[in-house]
Amino acid sequence: MELDTIAAISTPPGEGAIAIIRMSGDEAVQIGDRIYQGKKKLQDVDSHTIHYGHLVHPRTNETVEEVMVTVLRTPKTFTREDIVEINVHGGVVSADRVLQLVLSEGARLAEPGEFTKRAFLNGRIDLSQAEGVMDMIRSKTDRAMNVAMQQVEGRLARQIRKLRTQLLEAIAHIEVNIDYPEYDAESVTLERLQKQITAVQQEIDQLLATAHQGKILREGLATAIIGRPNVGKSSLMNALVQDNRAIVTEVPGTTRDVLEEYVNVKGVPLRLIDTAGIRETEDIVEKLGVERSRQALTDAELILFVLNANEPLSKEDEALFSAIKDFNAVVVLNKTDLPKEIDENQVRALVGDRPLVTTSLLYDEGIEGLEKAIAHLFFDQGVEEAEMSYVSNTRHIALLNQAKETINEAQEAAQNEMPVDMVQIDVTRAWEHLGEIVGENAPDQLIDQLFSQFCLGK
Amino acid sequence: MELDTIAAISTPPGEGAIAIIRMSGDEAVQIGDRIYQGKKKLQDVDSHTIHYGHLVHPRTNETVEEVMVTVLRTPKTFTREDIVEINVHGGVVSADRVLQLVLSEGARLAEPGEFTKRAFLNGRIDLSQAEGVMDMIRSKTDRAMNVAMQQVEGRLARQIRKLRTQLLEAIAHIEVNIDYPEYDAESVTLERLQKQITAVQQEIDQLLATAHQGKILREGLATAIIGRPNVGKSSLMNALVQDNRAIVTEVPGTTRDVLEEYVNVKGVPLRLIDTAGIRETEDIVEKLGVERSRQALTDAELILFVLNANEPLSKEDEALFSAIKDFNAVVVLNKTDLPKEIDENQVRALVGDRPLVTTSLLYDEGIEGLEKAIAHLFFDQGVEEAEMSYVSNTRHIALLNQAKETINEAQEAAQNEMPVDMVQIDVTRAWEHLGEIVGENAPDQLIDQLFSQFCLGK
Repeated sequence: MELDTIAAISTPPGEGAIAIIRMSGDEAVQIGDRIYQGKKKLQDVDSHTIHYGHLVHPRTNETVEEVMVTVLRTPKTFTREDIVEINVHGGVVSADRVLQLVLSEGARLAEPGEFTKRAFLNGRIDLSQAEGVMDMIRSKTDRAMNVAMQQVEGRLARQIRKLRTQLLEAIAHIEVNIDYPEYDAESVTLERLQKQITAVQQEIDQLLATAHQGKILREGLATAIIGRPNVGKSSLMNALVQDNRAIVTEVPGTTRDVLEEYVNVKGVPLRLIDTAGIRETEDIVEKLGVERSRQALTDAELILFVLNANEPLSKEDEALFSAIKDFNAVVVLNKTDLPKEIDENQVRALVGDRPLVTTSLLYDEGIEGLEKAIAHLFFDQGVEEAEMSYVSNTRHIALLNQAKETINEAQEAAQNEMPVDMVQIDVTRAWEHLGEIVGENAPDQLIDQLFSQFCLGK
Repeated sequence: MELDTIAAISTPPGEGAIAIIRMSGDEAVQIGDRIYQGKKKLQDVDSHTIHYGHLVHPRTNETVEEVMVTVLRTPKTFTREDIVEINVHGGVVSADRVLQLVLSEGARLAEPGEFTKRAFLNGRIDLSQAEGVMDMIRSKTDRAMNVAMQQVEGRLARQIRKLRTQLLEAIAHIEVNIDYPEYDAESVTLERLQKQITAVQQEIDQLLATAHQGKILREGLATAIIGRPNVGKSSLMNALVQDNRAIVTEVPGTTRDVLEEYVNVKGVPLRLIDTAGIRETEDIVEKLGVERSRQALTDAELILFVLNANEPLSKEDEALFSAIKDFNAVVVLNKTDLPKEIDENQVRALVGDRPLVTTSLLYDEGIEGLEKAIAHLFFDQGVEEAEMSYVSNTRHIALLNQAKETINEAQEAAQNEMPVDMVQIDVTRAWEHLGEIVGENAPDQLIDQLFSQFCLGK
């Protein structure tokens, strides 16, 4: 495939020690040589080597930057094209003017994700791997990073391709039967087909079984801390944030108000809801009453419900218990340092089989138990994460569900002894759905849309 | 010099395509090999080569990252030590956990500026070059970048060293005279000395003559837009920001309120004062009256004083004219699209020999003239910037002034025919002052303090 040469700043914006301007394409080395002055021309250096030198403006002859330039020649590169990476002293002006220089020498400004898109278009990675690259960058926890890493390594892609091969074999067999009906009795073909697609069905089910956890790892678990005023909600919030490295990300295109705060609780990324206000003034969360707590429930996937052990259970508490009855929740009985006034049996009855932990947040006690309870709620099977391959991407999950559905339809059709070519249509559709996960049969529009979500320079 | 191995993330924080974890020191390659798995061991690869592979946790055997690793062997490196740079997929978790990994394998977290400090301690660059590196990163405009670049290239350092050599020759001559008084008559020695130090004095004066512009280029020109309500202050602000690429930097350790907005006007970086409020609501600047305008003057190095051509000159306008009489100012006669009511002769009399430009900001007219006037005010000599070597750093300026003073004292002493050894003391002090610029005779405390202002990973 013949594509033009693209360029972008590949390091995050801002002041830093190093910034990288990356070029990819047939003319990358040529453009580099027009502005680079060092011991050797870049066209004469070996691939995968790095060179000290200066960028000199080709018209003004002015020295623009002191640089290290890496030359990576096709095909062993990220994009499978020639890549030239110019490392400059970090800083806003520096990176930007080097970018302007390579653009003025014939490179085109890369679109978001265009380097990765080329890796895909040039066949180095499939779509699921490309999506894994994006997930790696966005990962909020180690576990999420591992899931993304496995995806980049092609673990999901291999599983999907194996399933597709199995479906293709089934399809081939049907076609043989259609073309040479004397070869096999149709009933034998159908029986064999059912066996084949049942195996695929089971594997899809196994993959989908990981989807819930996978999505949590990838996107974080929307978590609301609720409770009556002054039970210790902001103390709980602070304890979680202090105890765990919190990652605060600004959601692009929005105001500072919708900062997302991630807390990594034993590998479970909690996305704390409604934290912007909390951070501004610690007291706000304490003032949020029952009504506000109810609202917070709307988007929540996990509830941390705080009760005051020093007071009898109130009507409001009971109302909140009934509000959370359909939610994943951990009940936190706080202020155990004070004389106990709450009826613990009554609490236990309301808690049911959900975890109940006791804390004295004032004395920093009980946090470990709470964190274990949260982790257990989402990773209760005690899986060795390294062994586990998660499906985490909403698009993949949707396509797996579609594939599952069409295979079900094929099963039914086969059971009802429909004509084999009818069954074949369903199996082929399932094969196509799976193909879309790895980017085969994926419409251009989908591909464009996916890569446009990447960051610039990737 | 034997130093331990340091490590840091050398790219700005945040989501990006590439992050770099940099190690420098004797054990950099060894530590790299403990976690890197690729075709070859890093210890076996050539210097200045880059290698694809994976980072694998040495205890859990878990694959941590897909990486490109660059090996740069001493002495041809930034620090003159072995350097290993690990390029990872950008992202907060990714870079951070690779850093944690190299730290757990024996590297020490680098202090801010410690890589550059090593380049200095290991004799690759002098202190003025190191300071140039920091200035490059912080540059707000191309010109500032060029000034910093020249400093990194050692242009200032060479000039300073030349001056020091001249002073040293003068000192040597005095010592010959002291040791062998029969060799030269003292009067001859003094005469010769005066000639020598006069030459140095002139060169220092030439350097100091660039200091004002140099400082402006480096730090930006604190600029206040003043005028009565509704004369068009916020329109002017917006015109400058839109017409020129504005760089907004957050001042570290402060709230968002003290954002600094830089506007690059034909190479002159204007640091717009009091813009936080202006950005929040455009109208605020319009509402600022005469009193507020007066306050804005306190820190200003350039005043843009806006008048309404559609109204007669008011008492407030006249009050502002007298308030700015000691300032660099450009007077902007705005709203020339409306019928002229102002007495232009009266205005011209008040403006004096300061530039007066007319604009119709509503119709985007006159901006170019304003920008030329600003640029002319600060770069009126029409110097070819590439030819020019600026002194821009406050520390350097102070030391040059000190050197100048002590040379003046030596001159006086010589004129008054003081004993040559008295004169020698002054000349030696001047030599020391100049030495401090390039980091010779610089106290450890100063060096520590200078490098601590660098960003992490540099």
